[in-house]
Amino acid sequence: MRKISAIGIGAGDPDHLTVQAIRRLNETDVFFVLDKGSEKQDLVALRQEILDRFVEQPGYRVVRAPDPERDRTPDDYRKAVADWHRLRTDVYETMIASLGPDERGAFLVWGDPALYDSTLTLLDAVRDRGNVEFEYDVIPGVSSVAALTSRHRTTMNQIGRPVLVTTGRRLEAGWPEDVDDVFVMLDAGCTFSQFVDTGLEIYWGAYLGTPDELLLSGPLTAALAEEIRTVRASARSRKGWIMDIYHLRRPAPSRI
Amino acid sequence: MRKISAIGIGAGDPDHLTVQAIRRLNETDVFFVLDKGSEKQDLVALRQEILDRFVEQPGYRVVRAPDPERDRTPDDYRKAVADWHRLRTDVYETMIASLGPDERGAFLVWGDPALYDSTLTLLDAVRDRGNVEFEYDVIPGVSSVAALTSRHRTTMNQIGRPVLVTTGRRLEAGWPEDVDDVFVMLDAGCTFSQFVDTGLEIYWGAYLGTPDELLLSGPLTAALAEEIRTVRASARSRKGWIMDIYHLRRPAPSRI
Ligand SMILES: C[S@@+](CC[C@H](N)C(=O)[O-])C[C@H]1O[C@@H](n2cnc3c(N)ncnc32)[C@H](O)[C@@H]1O
Ligand SMILES: C[S@@+](CC[C@H](N)C(=O)[O-])C[C@H]1O[C@@H](n2cnc3c(N)ncnc32)[C@H](O)[C@@H]1O
Repeated sequence: MRKISAIGIGAGDPDHLTVQAIRRLNETDVFFVLDKGSEKQDLVALRQEILDRFVEQPGYRVVRAPDPERDRTPDDYRKAVADWHRLRTDVYETMIASLGPDERGAFLVWGDPALYDSTLTLLDAVRDRGNVEFEYDVIPGVSSVAALTSRHRTTMNQIGRPVLVTTGRRLEAGWPEDVDDVFVMLDAGCTFSQFVDTGLEIYWGAYLGTPDELLLSGPLTAALAEEIRTVRASARSRKGWIMDIYHLRRPAPSRI
Repeated sequence: MRKISAIGIGAGDPDHLTVQAIRRLNETDVFFVLDKGSEKQDLVALRQEILDRFVEQPGYRVVRAPDPERDRTPDDYRKAVADWHRLRTDVYETMIASLGPDERGAFLVWGDPALYDSTLTLLDAVRDRGNVEFEYDVIPGVSSVAALTSRHRTTMNQIGRPVLVTTGRRLEAGWPEDVDDVFVMLDAGCTFSQFVDTGLEIYWGAYLGTPDELLLSGPLTAALAEEIRTVRASARSRKGWIMDIYHLRRPAPSRI
Protein backbone atom coordinates (compact mmCIF):
# COMPACT_ATOMS: atom_id res chain seq x y z
CA MET A 1 0.00 0.00 0.00
CA ARG A 2 1.22 3.51 -0.84
CA LYS A 3 1.67 5.70 2.22
CA ILE A 4 1.39 9.45 2.44
CA SER A 5 2.21 11.79 5.32
CA ALA A 6 1.21 15.39 5.77
CA ILE A 7 4.10 16.60 7.91
CA GLY A 8 3.78 19.83 9.89
CA ILE A 9 7.10 21.66 9.58
CA GLY A 10 6.41 24.59 11.89
CA ALA A 11 5.89 28.19 10.96
CA GLY A 12 9.22 29.39 9.63
CA ASP A 13 12.00 28.22 11.93
CA PRO A 14 13.53 24.85 10.97
CA ASP A 15 14.09 24.34 14.71
CA HIS A 16 10.29 23.98 15.04
CA LEU A 17 10.61 20.50 13.53
CA THR A 18 9.58 17.77 15.94
CA VAL A 19 11.33 14.47 16.58
CA GLN A 20 8.32 12.75 15.00
CA ALA A 21 8.53 14.92 11.88
CA ILE A 22 12.26 14.31 11.50
CA ARG A 23 11.77 10.56 11.80
CA ARG A 24 9.06 10.66 9.15
CA LEU A 25 11.24 12.76 6.81
CA ASN A 26 13.84 10.02 7.03
CA GLU A 27 11.29 7.34 6.10
CA THR A 28 10.06 9.18 3.02
CA ASP A 29 10.89 8.13 -0.54
CA VAL A 30 9.28 11.02 -2.39
CA PHE A 31 8.61 14.61 -1.35
CA PHE A 32 5.85 16.42 -3.21
CA VAL A 33 6.38 20.12 -3.76
CA LEU A 34 3.74 22.48 -5.09
CA ASP A 35 5.21 25.47 -6.87
CA LYS A 36 3.08 28.44 -5.96
CA GLY A 37 4.59 31.09 -8.23
CA SER A 38 7.61 33.28 -7.80
CA GLU A 39 6.66 35.16 -4.66
CA LYS A 40 6.84 32.01 -2.57
CA GLN A 41 10.30 30.85 -3.74
CA ASP A 42 11.63 31.61 -0.28
CA LEU A 43 9.20 29.09 1.17
CA VAL A 44 10.22 26.41 -1.32
CA ALA A 45 13.84 27.14 -0.36
CA LEU A 46 13.02 26.71 3.31
CA ARG A 47 11.57 23.29 2.62
CA GLN A 48 14.77 22.31 0.81
CA GLU A 49 16.80 23.61 3.74
CA ILE A 50 14.79 21.36 6.05
CA LEU A 51 15.48 18.33 3.86
CA ASP A 52 19.19 19.19 3.61
CA ARG A 53 19.49 19.59 7.32
CA PHE A 54 17.41 16.73 8.67
CA VAL A 55 17.43 13.90 6.15
CA GLU A 56 20.43 11.71 6.93
CA GLN A 57 20.60 9.55 3.82
CA PRO A 58 19.38 11.68 0.97
CA GLY A 59 18.18 8.94 -1.37
CA TYR A 60 14.80 10.63 -1.77
CA ARG A 61 13.18 12.00 -4.92
CA VAL A 62 11.42 15.34 -5.17
CA VAL A 63 8.35 15.57 -7.39
CA ARG A 64 7.31 19.09 -8.30
CA ALA A 65 4.05 20.26 -9.80
CA PRO A 66 2.63 23.71 -10.39
CA ASP A 67 -0.17 24.59 -7.97
CA PRO A 68 -3.06 25.57 -10.27
CA GLU A 69 -3.88 29.26 -10.10
CA ARG A 70 -7.32 30.26 -8.97
CA ASP A 71 -9.36 32.64 -11.08
CA ARG A 72 -9.70 35.58 -8.67
CA THR A 73 -12.16 37.59 -10.78
CA PRO A 74 -14.60 34.99 -12.07
CA ASP A 75 -18.07 35.63 -13.46
CA ASP A 76 -19.35 32.59 -11.61
CA TYR A 77 -17.68 32.38 -8.19
CA ARG A 78 -18.97 28.93 -7.22
CA LYS A 79 -17.98 27.41 -10.51
CA ALA A 80 -14.50 28.98 -10.36
CA VAL A 81 -13.86 27.55 -6.89
CA ALA A 82 -15.16 24.12 -7.91
CA ASP A 83 -12.96 24.15 -11.05
CA TRP A 84 -9.93 25.11 -9.03
CA HIS A 85 -10.56 22.39 -6.47
CA ARG A 86 -10.93 19.82 -9.26
CA LEU A 87 -7.67 20.90 -10.90
CA ARG A 88 -5.81 20.73 -7.62
CA THR A 89 -7.27 17.29 -6.88
CA ASP A 90 -6.00 16.20 -10.32
CA VAL A 91 -2.51 17.40 -9.43
CA TYR A 92 -2.51 15.59 -6.09
CA GLU A 93 -3.87 12.44 -7.67
CA THR A 94 -1.15 12.45 -10.34
CA MET A 95 1.58 13.00 -7.75
CA ILE A 96 0.34 10.18 -5.52
CA ALA A 97 -0.06 7.85 -8.51
CA SER A 98 3.63 8.42 -9.31
CA LEU A 99 4.58 6.53 -6.12
CA GLY A 100 5.66 2.93 -6.40
CA PRO A 101 3.25 0.48 -4.75
CA ASP A 102 5.11 0.34 -1.41
CA GLU A 103 6.65 3.77 -1.37
CA ARG A 104 6.03 6.57 1.07
CA GLY A 105 5.37 10.11 -0.07
CA ALA A 106 5.13 13.26 2.00
CA PHE A 107 3.85 16.81 1.82
CA LEU A 108 5.74 19.29 3.99
CA VAL A 109 2.98 21.47 5.38
CA TRP A 110 3.66 24.93 6.75
CA GLY A 111 2.86 25.30 10.47
CA ASP A 112 0.33 22.75 11.65
CA PRO A 113 -1.47 20.86 8.85
CA ALA A 114 -4.89 21.36 10.50
CA LEU A 115 -4.89 25.16 10.33
CA TYR A 116 -5.97 27.00 7.17
CA ASP A 117 -4.27 24.59 4.85
CA SER A 118 -5.84 22.56 2.04
CA THR A 119 -3.54 19.50 2.03
CA LEU A 120 -5.82 17.28 4.13
CA THR A 121 -8.92 18.34 2.19
CA LEU A 122 -7.19 17.47 -1.07
CA LEU A 123 -5.95 14.11 0.20
CA ASP A 124 -9.53 13.26 1.20
CA ALA A 125 -10.76 14.38 -2.22
CA VAL A 126 -8.25 12.12 -3.98
CA ARG A 127 -9.25 9.22 -1.77
CA ASP A 128 -12.96 9.82 -2.42
CA ARG A 129 -12.35 9.53 -6.16
CA GLY A 130 -11.04 6.01 -5.60
CA ASN A 131 -8.58 5.97 -8.53
CA VAL A 132 -5.39 5.57 -6.48
CA GLU A 133 -5.24 3.63 -3.25
CA PHE A 134 -3.19 4.98 -0.36
CA GLU A 135 -3.09 5.38 3.40
CA TYR A 136 -2.22 8.65 5.03
CA ASP A 137 -1.34 10.12 8.38
CA VAL A 138 -0.72 13.58 9.81
CA ILE A 139 2.24 14.78 11.87
CA PRO A 140 1.25 17.80 13.97
CA GLY A 141 3.42 20.91 13.98
CA VAL A 142 3.99 24.24 15.67
CA SER A 143 1.41 26.63 14.19
CA SER A 144 1.92 30.29 13.41
CA VAL A 145 -0.41 31.02 16.34
CA ALA A 146 2.02 29.29 18.71
CA ALA A 147 4.97 30.99 16.97
CA LEU A 148 3.33 34.40 17.48
CA THR A 149 2.48 33.94 21.15
CA SER A 150 5.91 32.50 21.95
CA ARG A 151 7.66 35.54 20.53
CA HIS A 152 5.41 37.99 22.37
CA ARG A 153 5.39 35.76 25.47
CA THR A 154 1.63 36.07 25.62
CA THR A 155 -1.07 33.50 26.29
CA MET A 156 -3.70 32.66 23.68
CA ASN A 157 -6.54 32.83 26.19
CA GLN A 158 -7.29 34.85 29.28
CA ILE A 159 -8.03 32.73 32.36
CA GLY A 160 -10.95 30.41 31.64
CA ARG A 161 -11.97 32.37 28.55
CA PRO A 162 -12.35 31.34 24.90
CA VAL A 163 -10.16 32.16 21.89
CA LEU A 164 -11.18 32.67 18.27
CA VAL A 165 -8.93 31.98 15.29
CA THR A 166 -10.25 33.63 12.15
CA THR A 167 -9.39 35.29 8.84
CA GLY A 168 -9.06 38.93 7.84
CA ARG A 169 -12.11 38.64 5.64
CA ARG A 170 -14.26 37.37 8.52
CA LEU A 171 -13.03 40.08 10.87
CA GLU A 172 -14.21 42.73 8.39
CA ALA A 173 -17.76 41.88 9.46
CA GLY A 174 -17.06 43.29 12.94
CA TRP A 175 -15.81 42.19 16.34
CA PRO A 176 -16.95 38.61 16.97
CA GLU A 177 -19.50 37.84 19.68
CA ASP A 178 -18.48 36.72 23.17
CA VAL A 179 -14.72 36.55 22.71
CA ASP A 180 -11.90 38.73 24.01
CA ASP A 181 -8.97 37.10 22.21
CA VAL A 182 -8.91 36.86 18.44
CA PHE A 183 -6.10 35.57 16.19
CA VAL A 184 -6.29 36.81 12.63
CA MET A 185 -4.60 34.99 9.75
CA LEU A 186 -4.66 35.45 5.98
CA ASP A 187 -5.30 39.19 6.28
CA ALA A 188 -3.97 41.16 3.33
CA GLY A 189 -6.05 44.19 4.31
CA CYS A 190 -4.84 45.19 7.80
CA THR A 191 -8.37 44.75 9.11
CA PHE A 192 -7.14 45.63 12.63
CA SER A 193 -7.37 49.26 11.50
CA GLN A 194 -11.16 49.03 11.91
CA PHE A 195 -10.70 48.62 15.67
CA VAL A 196 -8.35 51.43 16.70
CA ASP A 197 -9.11 53.12 20.01
CA THR A 198 -11.64 50.51 21.13
CA GLY A 199 -9.61 49.33 24.12
CA LEU A 200 -7.75 46.50 22.37
CA GLU A 201 -4.14 45.37 22.52
CA ILE A 202 -2.48 44.08 19.37
CA TYR A 203 0.39 41.61 19.06
CA TRP A 204 1.56 41.49 15.47
CA GLY A 205 4.23 39.35 13.80
CA ALA A 206 5.50 38.80 10.26
CA TYR A 207 7.94 36.21 8.88
CA LEU A 208 7.89 34.61 12.33
CA GLY A 209 10.77 32.29 13.05
CA THR A 210 12.78 33.51 10.07
CA PRO A 211 15.74 35.93 9.97
CA ASP A 212 13.30 38.59 8.67
CA GLU A 213 10.96 38.32 11.66
CA LEU A 214 9.12 41.51 12.58
CA LEU A 215 7.24 42.08 15.84
CA LEU A 216 5.12 45.01 16.99
CA SER A 217 2.71 45.25 19.92
CA GLY A 218 0.91 47.61 22.25
CA PRO A 219 -2.43 49.29 22.80
CA LEU A 220 -4.16 49.48 19.41
CA THR A 221 -4.06 53.23 18.79
CA ALA A 222 -4.30 54.91 15.40
CA ALA A 223 -0.55 55.57 15.60
CA LEU A 224 0.34 51.91 16.20
CA ALA A 225 -2.05 50.75 13.45
CA GLU A 226 -0.35 53.16 11.08
CA GLU A 227 3.09 51.97 12.16
CA ILE A 228 2.17 48.33 11.49
CA ARG A 229 0.71 49.22 8.09
CA THR A 230 3.88 51.10 7.15
CA VAL A 231 6.30 48.44 8.38
CA ARG A 232 4.20 45.76 6.68
CA ALA A 233 4.02 47.58 3.34
CA SER A 234 7.72 48.29 3.19
CA ALA A 235 8.69 44.72 4.16
CA ARG A 236 6.28 43.36 1.59
CA SER A 237 7.67 45.50 -1.18
CA ARG A 238 11.25 44.74 -0.18
CA LYS A 239 10.78 40.95 -0.14
CA GLY A 240 7.98 40.61 -2.68
CA TRP A 241 5.70 38.69 -0.29
CA ILE A 242 4.62 38.73 3.32
CA MET A 243 3.10 36.35 5.86
CA ASP A 244 1.73 37.99 8.96
CA ILE A 245 -0.61 37.16 11.80
CA TYR A 246 -1.90 39.09 14.79
CA HIS A 247 -3.65 38.70 18.09
CA LEU A 248 -6.23 41.23 19.21
CA ARG A 249 -6.93 41.14 22.94
CA ARG A 250 -9.64 42.94 24.84
CA PRO A 251 -8.40 42.79 28.43
CA ALA A 252 -11.12 41.01 30.36
CA PRO A 253 -12.10 42.04 33.89
CA SER A 254 -9.50 40.35 36.10
CA ARG A 255 -10.55 37.14 37.76
CA ILE A 256 -7.54 37.21 40.07
CA MET B 1 21.24 37.65 34.70
CA ARG B 2 19.12 34.60 35.58
CA LYS B 3 17.36 33.09 32.58
CA ILE B 4 14.12 31.15 32.53
CA SER B 5 12.47 29.25 29.69
CA ALA B 6 8.92 28.01 29.47
CA ILE B 7 9.41 25.03 27.16
CA GLY B 8 6.44 23.51 25.35
CA ILE B 9 6.86 19.73 25.48
CA GLY B 10 3.89 18.70 23.34
CA ALA B 11 0.73 17.02 24.45
CA GLY B 12 1.76 13.54 25.56
CA ASP B 13 4.15 12.05 23.02
CA PRO B 14 7.84 12.70 23.74
CA ASP B 15 8.29 12.69 19.94
CA HIS B 16 6.39 16.02 19.88
CA LEU B 17 9.53 17.69 21.22
CA THR B 18 10.98 20.21 18.79
CA VAL B 19 14.63 20.71 17.89
CA GLN B 20 14.43 24.09 19.63
CA ALA B 21 13.02 22.55 22.80
CA ILE B 22 15.69 19.83 22.86
CA ARG B 23 18.43 22.40 22.45
CA ARG B 24 17.02 24.46 25.31
CA LEU B 25 16.72 21.38 27.56
CA ASN B 26 20.43 20.84 27.03
CA GLU B 27 21.23 24.43 28.05
CA THR B 28 19.25 24.26 31.28
CA ASP B 29 20.87 24.05 34.71
CA VAL B 30 17.72 23.63 36.81
CA PHE B 31 14.33 22.14 35.97
CA PHE B 32 11.42 23.27 38.09
CA VAL B 33 8.72 20.70 38.76
CA LEU B 34 5.39 21.46 40.38
CA ASP B 35 3.93 18.47 42.18
CA LYS B 36 0.20 18.53 41.54
CA GLY B 37 -0.93 15.65 43.81
CA SER B 38 -1.01 11.95 43.22
CA GLU B 39 -3.32 11.76 40.22
CA LYS B 40 -0.79 13.52 38.02
CA GLN B 41 2.23 11.35 38.88
CA ASP B 42 2.11 9.94 35.35
CA LEU B 43 2.66 13.43 33.99
CA VAL B 44 5.62 14.04 36.29
CA ALA B 45 7.02 10.71 35.09
CA LEU B 46 6.63 11.75 31.47
CA ARG B 47 8.65 14.90 32.14
CA GLN B 48 11.42 12.77 33.66
CA GLU B 49 11.29 10.47 30.63
CA ILE B 50 11.79 13.50 28.39
CA LEU B 51 14.84 14.59 30.39
CA ASP B 52 16.28 11.07 30.41
CA ARG B 53 15.84 10.73 26.70
CA PHE B 54 16.87 14.13 25.40
CA VAL B 55 19.40 15.64 27.80
CA GLU B 56 22.83 14.50 26.71
CA GLN B 57 24.94 15.47 29.71
CA PRO B 58 22.71 15.14 32.73
CA GLY B 59 24.43 17.62 35.02
CA TYR B 60 21.16 19.38 35.75
CA ARG B 61 19.33 19.79 39.07
CA VAL B 62 15.62 19.28 39.59
CA VAL B 63 13.85 21.57 42.04
CA ARG B 64 10.45 20.36 43.17
CA ALA B 65 7.77 22.28 44.96
CA PRO B 66 4.17 21.45 45.80
CA ASP B 67 1.68 23.31 43.63
CA PRO B 68 -0.61 25.03 46.18
CA GLU B 69 -4.11 23.58 46.23
CA ARG B 70 -6.96 25.83 45.39
CA ASP B 71 -9.93 26.05 47.74
CA ARG B 72 -12.69 24.74 45.47
CA THR B 73 -15.59 25.51 47.83
CA PRO B 74 -14.77 28.95 49.21
CA ASP B 75 -17.18 31.37 50.88
CA ASP B 76 -15.56 34.23 49.01
CA TYR B 77 -14.70 33.11 45.47
CA ARG B 78 -12.69 36.18 44.43
CA LYS B 79 -10.62 36.12 47.59
CA ALA B 80 -9.93 32.40 47.27
CA VAL B 81 -8.66 32.83 43.70
CA ALA B 82 -6.52 35.82 44.67
CA ASP B 83 -5.05 33.91 47.63
CA TRP B 84 -4.26 30.93 45.44
CA HIS B 85 -2.59 33.12 42.81
CA ARG B 86 -0.49 34.81 45.54
CA LEU B 87 0.62 31.47 46.97
CA ARG B 88 1.58 30.16 43.55
CA THR B 89 3.49 33.35 42.78
CA ASP B 90 5.37 32.81 46.08
CA VAL B 91 6.32 29.29 44.99
CA TYR B 92 7.54 30.47 41.58
CA GLU B 93 9.45 33.34 43.13
CA THR B 94 11.21 31.01 45.57
CA MET B 95 12.12 28.57 42.82
CA ILE B 96 13.53 31.27 40.58
CA ALA B 97 15.44 32.84 43.48
CA SER B 98 17.15 29.47 44.01
CA LEU B 99 18.99 29.91 40.70
CA GLY B 100 22.59 31.10 40.76
CA PRO B 101 23.07 34.54 39.19
CA ASP B 102 23.99 33.23 35.72
CA GLU B 103 22.07 30.00 35.70
CA ARG B 104 19.24 28.98 33.41
CA GLY B 105 16.05 27.43 34.75
CA ALA B 106 13.17 25.90 32.85
CA PHE B 107 9.57 24.88 33.26
CA LEU B 108 8.46 21.99 31.05
CA VAL B 109 4.99 23.04 29.98
CA TRP B 110 2.45 20.56 28.68
CA GLY B 111 1.40 21.13 25.05
CA ASP B 112 1.95 24.71 23.97
CA PRO B 113 2.66 27.15 26.82
CA ALA B 114 0.16 29.72 25.45
CA LEU B 115 -2.91 27.54 25.78
CA TYR B 116 -4.79 27.22 29.08
CA ASP B 117 -1.68 27.16 31.18
CA SER B 118 -0.69 29.49 34.01
CA THR B 119 3.12 29.36 33.72
CA LEU B 120 3.47 32.59 31.70
CA THR B 121 0.97 34.45 33.91
CA LEU B 122 2.92 33.40 37.01
CA LEU B 123 6.30 34.37 35.50
CA ASP B 124 4.85 37.82 34.76
CA ALA B 125 3.50 38.04 38.30
CA VAL B 126 6.93 37.24 39.77
CA ARG B 127 8.54 39.81 37.53
CA ASP B 128 6.00 42.47 38.46
CA ARG B 129 6.86 41.98 42.14
CA GLY B 130 10.44 42.97 41.33
CA ASN B 131 12.11 40.87 44.06
CA VAL B 132 14.11 38.58 41.77
CA GLU B 133 15.54 39.70 38.48
CA PHE B 134 15.37 37.36 35.49
CA GLU B 135 14.81 37.20 31.74
CA TYR B 136 12.51 34.67 30.18
CA ASP B 137 11.56 33.22 26.85
CA VAL B 138 8.97 30.80 25.52
CA ILE B 139 9.53 27.75 23.29
CA PRO B 140 6.32 26.91 21.39
CA GLY B 141 5.03 23.35 21.34
CA VAL B 142 2.51 21.03 19.74
CA SER B 143 -0.80 21.69 21.51
CA SER B 144 -3.45 19.14 22.40
CA VAL B 145 -5.59 20.74 19.70
CA ALA B 146 -2.97 19.84 17.07
CA ALA B 147 -2.53 16.40 18.64
CA LEU B 148 -6.29 15.78 18.39
CA THR B 149 -6.68 16.88 14.78
CA SER B 150 -3.61 14.95 13.66
CA ARG B 151 -4.96 11.70 15.07
CA HIS B 152 -8.40 12.21 13.51
CA ARG B 153 -6.83 13.64 10.32
CA THR B 154 -9.26 16.54 10.48
CA THR B 155 -8.73 20.24 9.93
CA MET B 156 -9.36 22.77 12.68
CA ASN B 157 -11.33 25.09 10.41
CA GLN B 158 -13.63 24.65 7.46
CA ILE B 159 -12.56 26.61 4.36
CA GLY B 160 -12.28 30.30 5.22
CA ARG B 161 -14.24 29.87 8.47
CA PRO B 162 -13.33 30.64 12.09
CA VAL B 163 -12.52 28.26 14.95
CA LEU B 164 -13.25 28.66 18.65
CA VAL B 165 -11.18 27.10 21.42
CA THR B 166 -13.03 27.10 24.72
CA THR B 167 -13.65 25.31 28.01
CA GLY B 168 -16.35 22.89 29.12
CA ARG B 169 -17.68 25.47 31.53
CA ARG B 170 -18.10 28.07 28.78
CA LEU B 171 -19.79 25.60 26.45
CA GLU B 172 -22.43 24.94 29.12
CA ALA B 173 -23.86 28.37 28.29
CA GLY B 174 -24.86 27.10 24.83
CA TRP B 175 -23.51 26.86 21.30
CA PRO B 176 -21.31 29.89 20.61
CA GLU B 177 -22.35 32.51 18.07
CA ASP B 178 -21.11 32.48 14.50
CA VAL B 179 -18.77 29.47 14.65
CA ASP B 180 -19.05 25.98 13.23
CA ASP B 181 -15.88 24.46 14.73
CA VAL B 182 -15.37 24.39 18.48
CA PHE B 183 -12.54 22.76 20.44
CA VAL B 184 -13.40 22.05 24.06
CA MET B 185 -10.72 21.61 26.73
CA LEU B 186 -10.86 21.23 30.50
CA ASP B 187 -14.29 19.62 30.41
CA ALA B 188 -14.91 17.27 33.32
CA GLY B 189 -18.64 17.27 32.62
CA CYS B 190 -19.04 15.84 29.09
CA THR B 191 -20.81 19.02 28.03
CA PHE B 192 -21.09 17.67 24.48
CA SER B 193 -24.10 15.72 25.76
CA GLN B 194 -26.11 18.95 25.62
CA PHE B 195 -25.78 18.97 21.83
CA VAL B 196 -26.81 15.48 20.73
CA ASP B 197 -28.87 15.26 17.55
CA THR B 198 -28.28 18.87 16.53
CA GLY B 199 -26.38 18.00 13.35
CA LEU B 200 -22.87 18.06 14.85
CA GLU B 201 -19.90 15.77 14.38
CA ILE B 202 -17.66 15.02 17.35
CA TYR B 203 -13.97 14.10 17.32
CA TRP B 204 -12.92 13.06 20.82
CA GLY B 205 -9.52 12.05 22.19
CA ALA B 206 -8.09 11.19 25.59
CA TYR B 207 -4.46 10.63 26.69
CA LEU B 208 -3.46 11.72 23.18
CA GLY B 209 0.04 10.76 22.15
CA THR B 210 0.42 8.29 25.02
CA PRO B 211 0.15 4.49 24.99
CA ASP B 212 -3.32 4.87 26.58
CA GLU B 213 -4.67 7.04 23.76
CA LEU B 214 -8.41 6.76 23.12
CA LEU B 215 -10.20 8.10 20.04
CA LEU B 216 -13.90 8.19 19.15
CA SER B 217 -15.68 10.12 16.44
CA GLY B 218 -18.81 10.34 14.35
CA PRO B 219 -22.15 12.12 14.12
CA LEU B 220 -23.04 13.28 17.64
CA THR B 221 -25.98 11.02 18.39
CA ALA B 222 -27.24 10.12 21.86
CA ALA B 223 -25.64 6.68 21.40
CA LEU B 224 -22.19 8.09 20.60
CA ALA B 225 -22.41 10.59 23.47
CA GLU B 226 -23.23 7.73 25.81
CA GLU B 227 -20.37 5.64 24.42
CA ILE B 228 -17.87 8.46 25.00
CA ARG B 229 -19.17 9.01 28.55
CA THR B 230 -18.82 5.30 29.32
CA VAL B 231 -15.35 4.92 27.79
CA ARG B 232 -14.24 8.09 29.53
CA ALA B 233 -15.58 7.06 32.95
CA SER B 234 -14.00 3.63 32.85
CA ALA B 235 -10.61 4.94 31.65
CA ARG B 236 -10.70 7.59 34.36
CA SER B 237 -11.43 5.10 37.10
CA ARG B 238 -8.82 2.66 35.82
CA LYS B 239 -6.00 5.24 35.64
CA GLY B 240 -7.14 7.62 38.37
CA TRP B 241 -7.07 10.66 36.09
CA ILE B 242 -8.00 11.66 32.56
CA MET B 243 -7.13 14.37 30.07
CA ASP B 244 -9.48 14.67 27.16
CA ILE B 245 -10.37 17.17 24.47
CA TYR B 246 -12.91 17.23 21.67
CA HIS B 247 -13.83 19.01 18.49
CA LEU B 248 -17.47 19.71 17.67
CA ARG B 249 -18.07 20.49 14.01
CA ARG B 250 -21.24 21.74 12.39
CA PRO B 251 -20.69 20.96 8.70
CA ALA B 252 -20.94 24.29 6.91
CA PRO B 253 -22.60 24.63 3.52
CA SER B 254 -19.90 23.55 1.06
CA ARG B 255 -18.00 26.34 -0.65
CA ILE B 256 -16.51 23.91 -3.14
C1 LIG C 1 -2.36 29.27 4.46
S1 LIG C 1 -2.22 29.75 6.14
C2 LIG C 1 -1.27 28.41 6.79
C3 LIG C 1 -1.17 28.39 8.30
C4 LIG C 1 -0.31 27.27 8.85
N1 LIG C 1 -0.87 25.95 8.55
C5 LIG C 1 -0.09 27.43 10.35
O1 LIG C 1 -0.31 26.47 11.12
O2 LIG C 1 0.35 28.49 10.78
C6 LIG C 1 -1.08 31.09 5.98
C7 LIG C 1 -1.26 32.15 7.06
O3 LIG C 1 -0.61 31.71 8.24
C8 LIG C 1 0.00 32.80 8.90
N2 LIG C 1 1.44 32.49 9.01
C9 LIG C 1 2.01 31.30 8.72
N3 LIG C 1 3.32 31.34 8.97
C10 LIG C 1 3.61 32.57 9.41
C11 LIG C 1 4.81 33.21 9.84
N4 LIG C 1 5.99 32.57 9.85
N5 LIG C 1 4.73 34.50 10.25
C12 LIG C 1 3.55 35.15 10.25
N6 LIG C 1 2.40 34.59 9.85
C13 LIG C 1 2.41 33.31 9.45
C14 LIG C 1 -0.32 34.04 8.10
O4 LIG C 1 -1.47 34.63 8.67
C15 LIG C 1 -0.62 33.47 6.74
O5 LIG C 1 -1.52 34.30 6.03
C1 LIG D 1 -4.37 22.88 31.61
S1 LIG D 1 -4.80 22.55 29.93
C2 LIG D 1 -3.22 22.56 29.17
C3 LIG D 1 -3.27 22.57 27.66
C4 LIG D 1 -1.91 22.53 27.01
N1 LIG D 1 -1.12 23.75 27.31
C5 LIG D 1 -2.01 22.33 25.50
O1 LIG D 1 -1.41 23.09 24.72
O2 LIG D 1 -2.66 21.37 25.10
C6 LIG D 1 -5.24 20.84 30.06
C7 LIG D 1 -6.29 20.41 29.04
O3 LIG D 1 -5.65 20.19 27.80
C8 LIG D 1 -6.24 19.09 27.12
N2 LIG D 1 -5.17 18.09 26.91
C9 LIG D 1 -3.85 18.30 27.10
N3 LIG D 1 -3.14 17.22 26.77
C10 LIG D 1 -4.02 16.30 26.34
C11 LIG D 1 -3.89 14.97 25.85
N4 LIG D 1 -2.69 14.38 25.74
N5 LIG D 1 -5.02 14.31 25.51
C12 LIG D 1 -6.22 14.88 25.61
N6 LIG D 1 -6.41 16.13 26.08
C13 LIG D 1 -5.32 16.84 26.44
C14 LIG D 1 -7.38 18.59 28.00
O4 LIG D 1 -8.58 19.20 27.56
C15 LIG D 1 -6.99 19.10 29.36
O5 LIG D 1 -8.14 19.33 30.17
